[in-house]
Amino acid sequence: MRAIDIIIKKRDGLELTKEEIEFFIHGFTEGTVDNYQASALTMAIYFRGMTDLEATYLTESILHSGDVLDLSAIHGVKVDKHSTGGVGDKTSLVVGPLVASLGVKFAKMSGRGLGHTGGTLDKLEAIPGYNISICEEDFVRQVNSIGIALVGQTGQLAPADKKLYALRDVTGTVESIPLIASSIMSKKLASGADAICLDVKVGSGAFMKNVEDATKLATLMVNIGKNCGKDMTAILTNMDEPLGLAVGNSLEVIEAINTLNGNGPKDFTDLCLEVAAHLVLSAKKASTLDEAKKLLLEQIENKKALETLAALVEAQGGDKAYILNPEMFPKANYTFEVKAQADGYISHIDALAIGNAAMMLGAGRSKIGDAIDHSVGIVLNKKVNDKVCRGETLAILHANKEDVVEEEQLLLEAFCISKSQVDSQLILKIIK
Amino acid sequence: MRAIDIIIKKRDGLELTKEEIEFFIHGFTEGTVDNYQASALTMAIYFRGMTDLEATYLTESILHSGDVLDLSAIHGVKVDKHSTGGVGDKTSLVVGPLVASLGVKFAKMSGRGLGHTGGTLDKLEAIPGYNISICEEDFVRQVNSIGIALVGQTGQLAPADKKLYALRDVTGTVESIPLIASSIMSKKLASGADAICLDVKVGSGAFMKNVEDATKLATLMVNIGKNCGKDMTAILTNMDEPLGLAVGNSLEVIEAINTLNGNGPKDFTDLCLEVAAHLVLSAKKASTLDEAKKLLLEQIENKKALETLAALVEAQGGDKAYILNPEMFPKANYTFEVKAQADGYISHIDALAIGNAAMMLGAGRSKIGDAIDHSVGIVLNKKVNDKVCRGETLAILHANKEDVVEEEQLLLEAFCISKSQVDSQLILKIIK
Repeated sequence: MRAIDIIIKKRDGLELTKEEIEFFIHGFTEGTVDNYQASALTMAIYFRGMTDLEATYLTESILHSGDVLDLSAIHGVKVDKHSTGGVGDKTSLVVGPLVASLGVKFAKMSGRGLGHTGGTLDKLEAIPGYNISICEEDFVRQVNSIGIALVGQTGQLAPADKKLYALRDVTGTVESIPLIASSIMSKKLASGADAICLDVKVGSGAFMKNVEDATKLATLMVNIGKNCGKDMTAILTNMDEPLGLAVGNSLEVIEAINTLNGNGPKDFTDLCLEVAAHLVLSAKKASTLDEAKKLLLEQIENKKALETLAALVEAQGGDKAYILNPEMFPKANYTFEVKAQADGYISHIDALAIGNAAMMLGAGRSKIGDAIDHSVGIVLNKKVNDKVCRGETLAILHANKEDVVEEEQLLLEAFCISKSQVDSQLILKIIK
Repeated sequence: MRAIDIIIKKRDGLELTKEEIEFFIHGFTEGTVDNYQASALTMAIYFRGMTDLEATYLTESILHSGDVLDLSAIHGVKVDKHSTGGVGDKTSLVVGPLVASLGVKFAKMSGRGLGHTGGTLDKLEAIPGYNISICEEDFVRQVNSIGIALVGQTGQLAPADKKLYALRDVTGTVESIPLIASSIMSKKLASGADAICLDVKVGSGAFMKNVEDATKLATLMVNIGKNCGKDMTAILTNMDEPLGLAVGNSLEVIEAINTLNGNGPKDFTDLCLEVAAHLVLSAKKASTLDEAKKLLLEQIENKKALETLAALVEAQGGDKAYILNPEMFPKANYTFEVKAQADGYISHIDALAIGNAAMMLGAGRSKIGDAIDHSVGIVLNKKVNDKVCRGETLAILHANKEDVVEEEQLLLEAFCISKSQVDSQLILKIIK
């Protein structure tokens, strides 16, 4: 078998076999297939696409380039969730405790963030003492005992993905749906869960700009997961404004705690319930989505979900007092209010601009290794469809510096105010 | 400027600027643009194509990666020809002397062959003593004195082409019309002629399998040449059978001599006259194509063209006695006749199969550095549309080995015999 023949076959629009894809990815990982052949193949894939089967083989080949977590020692159905990334997305912090409080095993490995704000790991580290690095054995033991673990990657998951992504990033093939799907799914499948709920963001603040592309990506990921024997759900959600109100690490943890107390923003609460309900269904703890949501709401009312978050924090070395008394989180030194300059209705909030402003405040990283300031960020006071009067507060900046002129300007431009209300919907589509 | 942005721009179907193409090719030649970025760009070009202007800029960038011959010291219009490569193609050996005998300066650099039979250089070296390596100064002096020089490449012409072609060869982008056109034209333009006639082969034995693709390639090359201030002609010619009768180095030189004596095969003679006539027109030595052909035929009849070939051979250190007495060329030890197994008309002769058989006999190279046996080859006895009876000789193998079973079988299969005559046309199209 030769790499060049595989490239030409894909270039000519023919379907690659399992053996061909395995040969190429294995050779690429080992270095016997050159980078310049891999970049030619990925560009051909960019133009020709891949069938569901090809994408499945690609995912499996990438997956088997490294360790695959063995969660068989965890009793019952293991669930996981993944978001394609949005501004203000702290869903895992709520969904995990919610489902775990119902006995659904939530065993999740997260990544660090690059961009606007930190990833789930960075948010967790805003809780004093929280340790994201635990070994696979402790990970399994913790999930068996308290039903949940939220950790960083252990072992070497999908190293081929890392190598391939780095190459795609400098050769113009990041924006290929089968390549995105296999990248995400190889890492998800390596984490060993039985059921996975994917939150695919759509809109100006997301990687997928329109519902059509997001549907293709979500459908392909669901099919890859199913082909690998997983129970799959994908939820398409609107990212034409940030999720919830808080953007920034401590601020988002506080919002997650508020949500588990029943006081979360409506859009964020709705999304957490939707994602959690699908996982509860997958774990057969309910027979309908409505029943699942009803059970989950009970776990909020009776504080069981909040207690599960506290138990998680405690199990991983954090101070659970912060969970029970979120006012303990250190605050930023300064707050600045950004005020509306016109009357009307909020028609759009540029999530990317909000994210960039948060990053400029120090909430995120512009390059690997940058330090993160957990206390800074932005809290929105208005969401899409809210009525607003000139002079009313649109958002509050939480900063550790006195000069926030640039960030204020960015925020002001991020809010679109129109004369009339617009239609806005958070959950756009469910793909199973 | 960044290579990645140029790749993405082409990937998205936008037109690259002169500066972008120059930046990329210059960086690629210097090594600051990586091979994996060049292979991604060429794959994007494969799918998106290039405008005439983009292809011109690409050609110029490749051209300026090395030396450009300065032929300004040669008086008058300097002409050159190029063939995209076919089996039995010894056109330069006839066209050069023909036009030079009319005072048109023929200053040509040729390549060695890889494949079926040798290139023009290998054929010339079948003439004892012929030296293909002369310096640029002597090259110019010789063209000024006898009107013709046929040499190997001097200096470093278009090194970026060599590097890019080697990369395309292992990454599946050989078959891209703008990349083929810029590769050919960069080398042609580096050779410094004022007028160029391109012979673009079409058919099963050629790189371009159909008239549509060949027309695209020829038109693009003509436009690139014109954009660079050259007088251009492209001739599309049929390669559904070998050109002329002889395939093999000495055998082809003998056929070229016969043609200059007025005894060449009709198809080959017609093609030589057509190419030569266009060059004569470009050099303004005639005002119509018919007039040019009439002048050229006179040069055959009065032996002036043959004398010019003899003068060329002598000037480059060869023994001109071979030209005047072609029976002096060493013969292969054995000849084998391949006989028809059915009655009918020849409908097709697979040029590639004939070429492969010649290569197996030792007339060509399967890899760089292989030795060539100048005396071996194949002489066809029948051409397309000829009537043939069972038992009649189709072709004669000239071999220096006794076992030619495989070659005979290949030849037998190369000849298609049908019940009725087919239409066949050598010159398919002229593009100016």
